[in-house]
Amino acid sequence: MSSIIKNGLIVTASDTYKGDIYIEDGIIKEIGIDLQRQCDEVIDAKGKYVIPGGVDVHTHLNLDVGIAVANDDFYTGTVAAACGGTTCIVDHMGFGPKGCNLHHQVNVYHGYADDKAVIDYSFHGVVQHVDDRILKEMSEIVNDEGIPSFKIYLTYDYKVSDEEALKILMRLKELGGITTVHPENNDSINYFRRLFVEQGKTSPIYHPMSRPVECEAEAISRMINLASLAGNAPLYIVHLSNELGLKYIKIAQDSGQKVYVETCPQYLFLDEEKYKEPNNEGLKYIMSPPLRKKDNQAALWKGIKDGNIHVVATDHCPFAFNKDKQMGKDDFTKCPNGVPGIEERIPLMFSEGVMKSKISINRFVDVCCTSPAKMFGLYPKKGAIQVGSDADIVLIDPNKDVILTRDILHENVDYTAYEGMKLKGYPVLTMVRGKVIVKNNHFIGEKGYGKFIKRQKRNY
Amino acid sequence: MSSIIKNGLIVTASDTYKGDIYIEDGIIKEIGIDLQRQCDEVIDAKGKYVIPGGVDVHTHLNLDVGIAVANDDFYTGTVAAACGGTTCIVDHMGFGPKGCNLHHQVNVYHGYADDKAVIDYSFHGVVQHVDDRILKEMSEIVNDEGIPSFKIYLTYDYKVSDEEALKILMRLKELGGITTVHPENNDSINYFRRLFVEQGKTSPIYHPMSRPVECEAEAISRMINLASLAGNAPLYIVHLSNELGLKYIKIAQDSGQKVYVETCPQYLFLDEEKYKEPNNEGLKYIMSPPLRKKDNQAALWKGIKDGNIHVVATDHCPFAFNKDKQMGKDDFTKCPNGVPGIEERIPLMFSEGVMKSKISINRFVDVCCTSPAKMFGLYPKKGAIQVGSDADIVLIDPNKDVILTRDILHENVDYTAYEGMKLKGYPVLTMVRGKVIVKNNHFIGEKGYGKFIKRQKRNY
Amino acid sequence: MSSIIKNGLIVTASDTYKGDIYIEDGIIKEIGIDLQRQCDEVIDAKGKYVIPGGVDVHTHLNLDVGIAVANDDFYTGTVAAACGGTTCIVDHMGFGPKGCNLHHQVNVYHGYADDKAVIDYSFHGVVQHVDDRILKEMSEIVNDEGIPSFKIYLTYDYKVSDEEALKILMRLKELGGITTVHPENNDSINYFRRLFVEQGKTSPIYHPMSRPVECEAEAISRMINLASLAGNAPLYIVHLSNELGLKYIKIAQDSGQKVYVETCPQYLFLDEEKYKEPNNEGLKYIMSPPLRKKDNQAALWKGIKDGNIHVVATDHCPFAFNKDKQMGKDDFTKCPNGVPGIEERIPLMFSEGVMKSKISINRFVDVCCTSPAKMFGLYPKKGAIQVGSDADIVLIDPNKDVILTRDILHENVDYTAYEGMKLKGYPVLTMVRGKVIVKNNHFIGEKGYGKFIKRQKRNY
Amino acid sequence: MSSIIKNGLIVTASDTYKGDIYIEDGIIKEIGIDLQRQCDEVIDAKGKYVIPGGVDVHTHLNLDVGIAVANDDFYTGTVAAACGGTTCIVDHMGFGPKGCNLHHQVNVYHGYADDKAVIDYSFHGVVQHVDDRILKEMSEIVNDEGIPSFKIYLTYDYKVSDEEALKILMRLKELGGITTVHPENNDSINYFRRLFVEQGKTSPIYHPMSRPVECEAEAISRMINLASLAGNAPLYIVHLSNELGLKYIKIAQDSGQKVYVETCPQYLFLDEEKYKEPNNEGLKYIMSPPLRKKDNQAALWKGIKDGNIHVVATDHCPFAFNKDKQMGKDDFTKCPNGVPGIEERIPLMFSEGVMKSKISINRFVDVCCTSPAKMFGLYPKKGAIQVGSDADIVLIDPNKDVILTRDILHENVDYTAYEGMKLKGYPVLTMVRGKVIVKNNHFIGEKGYGKFIKRQKRNY
Repeated sequence: MSSIIKNGLIVTASDTYKGDIYIEDGIIKEIGIDLQRQCDEVIDAKGKYVIPGGVDVHTHLNLDVGIAVANDDFYTGTVAAACGGTTCIVDHMGFGPKGCNLHHQVNVYHGYADDKAVIDYSFHGVVQHVDDRILKEMSEIVNDEGIPSFKIYLTYDYKVSDEEALKILMRLKELGGITTVHPENNDSINYFRRLFVEQGKTSPIYHPMSRPVECEAEAISRMINLASLAGNAPLYIVHLSNELGLKYIKIAQDSGQKVYVETCPQYLFLDEEKYKEPNNEGLKYIMSPPLRKKDNQAALWKGIKDGNIHVVATDHCPFAFNKDKQMGKDDFTKCPNGVPGIEERIPLMFSEGVMKSKISINRFVDVCCTSPAKMFGLYPKKGAIQVGSDADIVLIDPNKDVILTRDILHENVDYTAYEGMKLKGYPVLTMVRGKVIVKNNHFIGEKGYGKFIKRQKRNY
Repeated sequence: MSSIIKNGLIVTASDTYKGDIYIEDGIIKEIGIDLQRQCDEVIDAKGKYVIPGGVDVHTHLNLDVGIAVANDDFYTGTVAAACGGTTCIVDHMGFGPKGCNLHHQVNVYHGYADDKAVIDYSFHGVVQHVDDRILKEMSEIVNDEGIPSFKIYLTYDYKVSDEEALKILMRLKELGGITTVHPENNDSINYFRRLFVEQGKTSPIYHPMSRPVECEAEAISRMINLASLAGNAPLYIVHLSNELGLKYIKIAQDSGQKVYVETCPQYLFLDEEKYKEPNNEGLKYIMSPPLRKKDNQAALWKGIKDGNIHVVATDHCPFAFNKDKQMGKDDFTKCPNGVPGIEERIPLMFSEGVMKSKISINRFVDVCCTSPAKMFGLYPKKGAIQVGSDADIVLIDPNKDVILTRDILHENVDYTAYEGMKLKGYPVLTMVRGKVIVKNNHFIGEKGYGKFIKRQKRNY
Repeated sequence: MSSIIKNGLIVTASDTYKGDIYIEDGIIKEIGIDLQRQCDEVIDAKGKYVIPGGVDVHTHLNLDVGIAVANDDFYTGTVAAACGGTTCIVDHMGFGPKGCNLHHQVNVYHGYADDKAVIDYSFHGVVQHVDDRILKEMSEIVNDEGIPSFKIYLTYDYKVSDEEALKILMRLKELGGITTVHPENNDSINYFRRLFVEQGKTSPIYHPMSRPVECEAEAISRMINLASLAGNAPLYIVHLSNELGLKYIKIAQDSGQKVYVETCPQYLFLDEEKYKEPNNEGLKYIMSPPLRKKDNQAALWKGIKDGNIHVVATDHCPFAFNKDKQMGKDDFTKCPNGVPGIEERIPLMFSEGVMKSKISINRFVDVCCTSPAKMFGLYPKKGAIQVGSDADIVLIDPNKDVILTRDILHENVDYTAYEGMKLKGYPVLTMVRGKVIVKNNHFIGEKGYGKFIKRQKRNY
Repeated sequence: MSSIIKNGLIVTASDTYKGDIYIEDGIIKEIGIDLQRQCDEVIDAKGKYVIPGGVDVHTHLNLDVGIAVANDDFYTGTVAAACGGTTCIVDHMGFGPKGCNLHHQVNVYHGYADDKAVIDYSFHGVVQHVDDRILKEMSEIVNDEGIPSFKIYLTYDYKVSDEEALKILMRLKELGGITTVHPENNDSINYFRRLFVEQGKTSPIYHPMSRPVECEAEAISRMINLASLAGNAPLYIVHLSNELGLKYIKIAQDSGQKVYVETCPQYLFLDEEKYKEPNNEGLKYIMSPPLRKKDNQAALWKGIKDGNIHVVATDHCPFAFNKDKQMGKDDFTKCPNGVPGIEERIPLMFSEGVMKSKISINRFVDVCCTSPAKMFGLYPKKGAIQVGSDADIVLIDPNKDVILTRDILHENVDYTAYEGMKLKGYPVLTMVRGKVIVKNNHFIGEKGYGKFIKRQKRNY
């Protein structure tokens, strides 16, 4: 199987140039000018941007949060991803039964994903508790299972203590892996949630009020200091939503600390006012951390531009507004947390970031494709248009006008948080390992085509 | 009883001028030029600076730390304070028995101090745990006992949780009081202490290595964020030792948060190298937070100059080097924590701060006398030379050269951390409520002369 | 002549306390509690703040700008000052004939002020050009005439070159004096003025557009660097109007440079929108630097609070709106520059600063009275309520509600820039050297009572 | 003519990957895996880094400074460049006769370079004075001559005034070009030079003392503000040497200003101590701005890492130490200014930057090759390894140990400022438009092979 993508404008994290791409056996074999190779398929990319397929390193497919299960499984979720220009995901696994070992969830997730996913995938490990056995087992997960990143939570049921966090940071540093963290202060969130429920303050707007900026910023600075105590252990902060946290992060980065940062489209494009929408529509935006006051957005964009924020991922975790989310209609604390976004990420970042001159197209490719792949050991297989890389390629038509609505999306959920936004430009073709699986927003791939990627360790 | 202090150069937190001070019944009644009043005593202050008596808002007299009791009680400790130019202290009470109510330690400390202290005094409350009864009792301590400040610890046996801290911050804000905090991250300190002991790393230098800058900085940012969550509750950070913590503090202060800061002479004049002194002399400096790398000193001085640091206090907590401190000779974790300083503070700050042009003499008076009094509701009774204030007055002779050694000090302990320092200028007379109790470094007052001061609430 | 001010609340730059003030021969002789002295006059200050008389170190009385003469002379101007709570001014002299020596304008100004002023006064020297004779003459002005401060302009006819500025900074440092500077970039202002006039853009709004923030900020950083090159020569920046300049200033101050800063009420309370007022009322606000965008105000208030800005003065320079200012009605470049303010400063800063909690009452006293006196060698004679100081005292009634209008003011000009503002609190009595010259907004002093003050050098 | 570079590790500003490069007619035609093309030449790059040829946008070949002529002409200078891994230069032209038009020097420089240069080249325009004719002529230079960048000097004989600078900034913005500036304060430099000569302070150390950091920083902030006044005109600051200037730059960049920055190896690796070398060796380092105190180096490296500094160029301007430089042996003001570096840049940045982990290899490629090409309209022809680009390629052997000495260099001058430095890694092959012109440090190209590049305008 071979193909050529002709006449496009190839974009990498630093360069932009015209060229043809020759693909064989799923690999980019040649990039050339006016390539005249015989091949099975010729794709004309004239007038299109040719970018590395999007890499979304923060998804929650099949996620079971106890009171509900995220509506997208590894099939529907990856179909949506592909339609939105994403060709590889790294899913944050949910918690397993109390006391389970680290392999438990890895096995569960292979069960979820293998033979279902339509694009390539990996998982982040999750640490629910720490003991000597778990620390030992980490080596196997990192080295044998090809999963060199783990997530810890500082809130929720399986939150880890500071001592546990310290041990995890040290251990993963030793193993050449990286610790990712959901940073929120558990005590204060619980305090406010109880307080608001007692006071009958249960509408959606009390969700952000129960976990203000300070809850997140506190936990960020805590983790930064623990990572420093662990000998400058690499630390990856997921879904940064606010400026105060970013200030703490900059202090650490300026001092040479290895702190890497992810934000999500919801924090770049939506704000706290959404919770006040009539008819309980605020429930759509119940996620953690919550949407923030609008002025945080400019700070996050500046962080992306300056390089303090490295990755834009989605935290995709869809629950039906008319079903699951309604559990929270009388009490926000009963509402499952999460928002869909796996399909909207690339279109939003291209239209609202690049076309509105917030960031260059190269920086767009960097934060959406290249940096995430580098960050988590997928590079140069993923995240790059260069010979030897997997032919995971997306074509964006900058002249395609799209009104973003639920109807054009493939996510298995009944709303989009960005309903009605007018986008300039949209992905029109998605190729994974040389095979076109999406054309003009139609999925034409096959279930189970996606492969699990054993990730490499990188040098942080 | 009346007296006049003549011909001195009176110094306040903002002004410097010549004038005579007439005192009657312990109160400053008049300040005038060439006062010709009849009176019992005339003190010639020619060539001397006349400053408000020092106010030390962080002492630990009689402190029982379990394995040892601080060597200075309220008699010896206040004699030393007086000889060093301090006329009022606010002592941080130790912990009481587990579960005791708030009055318990107040009563214990009245037992320690009443009829013993030679200068006026108050106590900071201490919160060991939180429940509804404790929160209710706080009102009595603040309003009836005249103790509007409480301390919490984030490490040690009676550390409070984040939720408890949040409740205390809220409650004290409501009552018009203030929360003071010893900020250190408990988990990481314990981790390193256990680790070092296991590894046989037990010499004094492992003390600072077991509680690095990050342990303190983390806890500072945590408390700042909890205080913000508590509705911008006033927060007072004791014994700041490092620059990173100060960076977090500035972010908060710049955003309008009510964060007040204390540092101590040990952090301004001594550094980590001290722990490496031969013959286990490093034990002398076992205190928490520990001495830091030298470059933190410049940051702290800048903080004092710029107004980000408001108070210089001592954390005076003396243990005999040849006795108590020796418990740590084979294992630093066995060494009682603390360093003497109640007597050295004013001389050090004057000689090394004012005479070496690090700060103006007015800023010296501010951080050592006026600000501490204002901070904790003692002002304008204390901390000021103005009519109506208590006649707590100290004369400093800027031309007196003193070599600081154990022998000239009155602290009941066998060493000073500043042995051999050559000072320019020294207090030569200390008056408390109109009575001269120290003259040329000789205590001539009487035991029990000191009175407990019911403190006012202030408007933070 | 003797008097007592009883029962007031005395406020200094750091302290606030109750006390009586006994005055004899124009000097504060005693401050006491319930003073029972015989005296000629007893003033009851119950319920009033008793502050040091305001010191305004930036006025332009009698100023001849070529096309017009400032409407207030040393009589009307100082009457207005007194009514507004100011008891001492330092006037910035205008330019003399080209090539004149330094004594020339000193003599001219003695002619203007002596026997006219009703409050005490001094002058700042002005340097129009530099040569060896001028540099030599400086010593006489500083040492014999008692004028240790000079102003230079970086724009206008007698602007100095960078080399001249450097020489002046060096010379004044050597003499123990200080250089003050009007910092604006001459070339760019002239360019824009010519351009706008050519383009017929001559309405008042083109005044601020012809000298944007960058013109001022550029000149500030230039002067700061020249002062550093001159060996950290003391530098005083007059009428700072914007945040960008303040950023440059902070960099210098943080590095230890002796840079002192003044702002004015117009930059704290008014903004650029004023130039758009109908009926050419924008002409009222033609001054240099011009009013800025509103967000600069918060930065300036923060500068005052943090201590980066030391002084609030007025740049009082009144031209009649219905006469002089109308010269600019068809062309803003023809309008004499300046705004009145000598009378409004203290009321505005008290009502809008203190009563609205932007700054403490002590900081208010500091920036309006004490710091300006210290800055320019008037202290402790001026700017202080302490024994030995001149009895220059102002009583403020915090409960007096006043609507600020032209009618209640004594400035010799037909408008106030603050027309209609509702003030909380107002000066109700002004005393200069023991003599009450204003009572309830009525001037009861006498022409020529004011004395020229030979100023001291201070240690910067 | 065709060739293949096989088995190398290709490095771009963002990516690193294995691949073969096929070159035809001087252009990169294909990049592929294991290319089996027939071709004239096969280059084995196994174990080598394959980078875009270095682009040095700040050289002074043939420069006539009046008292001397830079020793390298366009032949010897470009031979040296090529041997050091640089394949394209943009030369800053010297001044022409007073009053000459803009074409004058362009013509002179074509005379210097055409038929001499061995690598491709362009020139920066130079503006010596401003009038309507010059402003009009700019359009021809930018659009017809292909020179969209001009330099202005704020010191030296043909310095421009602030008004001229403002007009140039505006005009070049209008034309789509960019203003580059040599920023130093002319008045203060001249003042100190005269002063030192008068005082007999004429040894090399007085060179840096006559133009301290403030001279440069002042001029930087001045130009930044003028560029802002010109409507955010793009501004390129050449040879930044110090931290204070960088602070001003960051303020501007953070506010969205288009300020681009270049530094040079001499400021990253050498410091002020060099001027004190015995035997007048300090003369070797007489350049402007001069070498600075060592702590500036860390700030510059941080600027490179954070993206505040975009380009590393050389300011190559060689004068023989034993001849030209000796003119300054009795008086530093008589010494021609400049230091060689065209050949040392890439080796130094690779060895001391990449191999010592100060920056990533991608950032190295960015600041030395890609960014300079993008900045000045040479990209994607130059500065990139991608199809369609000129085959300007350099191979670096990371395992080659080299002691940097005069003897191994090809610059036409008798010293190197980096004599004796031990380098890890060195360029081993240089190709320009498909032709290998340097192999193992031997030049094998031909005189006049280099072509003048008409540069494009870019979108700043």
